[in-house]
Amino acid sequence: MDVTSFYDVVHRRRDVRGEFTGGVVPTDVLHRILGAAHTAPSVGLSQPWDFVLVRDVDTRTAFRDHVKAERENFASQLDEEQARTFARIKVEGVLESSLGVVVTYDPQRGGPAVLGRHAIDDAGLYSVCLAIGNLWLAATAEGLGVGWVSFYREQFLRELLAIPTQIRPVAWLCLGPVTTLQATPDLERHGWRHRTPLAQVVHEEQFGRPPHP
Amino acid sequence: MDVTSFYDVVHRRRDVRGEFTGGVVPTDVLHRILGAAHTAPSVGLSQPWDFVLVRDVDTRTAFRDHVKAERENFASQLDEEQARTFARIKVEGVLESSLGVVVTYDPQRGGPAVLGRHAIDDAGLYSVCLAIGNLWLAATAEGLGVGWVSFYREQFLRELLAIPTQIRPVAWLCLGPVTTLQATPDLERHGWRHRTPLAQVVHEEQFGRPPHP
Repeated sequence: MDVTSFYDVVHRRRDVRGEFTGGVVPTDVLHRILGAAHTAPSVGLSQPWDFVLVRDVDTRTAFRDHVKAERENFASQLDEEQARTFARIKVEGVLESSLGVVVTYDPQRGGPAVLGRHAIDDAGLYSVCLAIGNLWLAATAEGLGVGWVSFYREQFLRELLAIPTQIRPVAWLCLGPVTTLQATPDLERHGWRHRTPLAQVVHEEQFGRPPHP
Repeated sequence: MDVTSFYDVVHRRRDVRGEFTGGVVPTDVLHRILGAAHTAPSVGLSQPWDFVLVRDVDTRTAFRDHVKAERENFASQLDEEQARTFARIKVEGVLESSLGVVVTYDPQRGGPAVLGRHAIDDAGLYSVCLAIGNLWLAATAEGLGVGWVSFYREQFLRELLAIPTQIRPVAWLCLGPVTTLQATPDLERHGWRHRTPLAQVVHEEQFGRPPHP
């Protein structure tokens, strides 16, 4: 296994908003990407995820309009300087990408006794996130882009896609071909926030003890 | 980029319990693996994770004993047939692996206005899971094994590692060299549960509409 090319994928992966071309994702590529997501680890082998593929323009427009309203909602909570920075940042590519992949969590999958979830109720939700991570990296390896949109209310998305009450939407992912993947995350390029060095988040033996040099 | 080798990592990755050799993880390898985790996407670029490296045998023994008790707790909830199957399944390799990596979530990181988290409070927790996913795949690419232990109470782990009250432990990951990675997940080999085909979890346009053939 070529370790370098694996790390290359990890480091090239970006959260894409402005770079989607609108081109379609070929069926075989989409199948491989969803296959990688479905191969993710899951608590008790419950595989508690579903993937809803949204191509319909009316559905995507309705979602985009909702996201726009939530963006304004967030903007109104910011101070003046933050609001100026935020005004430059694009938060979604729902119409620019040709495909939305909505990932959901079904807490009843594999129940009632899900091995490994009795003590940590959120463990199923964690599994769904690992599927999203696999999907994102696989798309990057395939040369595509992914953008996770999180400016929405779960109940809105549930109603839009007829998602049953007991199932929780976890992500709307914009997926598609891109002109380029930016070398630096958008939020850093636009001065919203900078990435921290690894040493700042590593502890030895106990929380708060810095790592050995 | 070699797409095939990327998918190879995704498909070889296993949740390891019994195959740890007890060998140490070289410092440079550990650094690359944690670097991959720290490169994960995060809501509002908040990078809300921390990594506590636990090597101390007393700490790991205390955790292993706690996990053992939680295992018995879970076993007592099973019916007779499930209990027989579960008795064959190993749920942790806390002492067999030489290193525990405890991953935590800090909801205050990057606050108070975390871009993309105003509507979905759990979005920060999702980011932490993506870091865990990166770590797991990177370790696999490096030829190591990872086992996510989830038979524990968060409060126990918080006290054991002096994790502050506002910070949430998300995972104890056993990390280390392995004799082999099993071709089939343990839970499937032991007849606990079988993986489902991808088509079962893919929907078109609306939840419940099966995918096009």
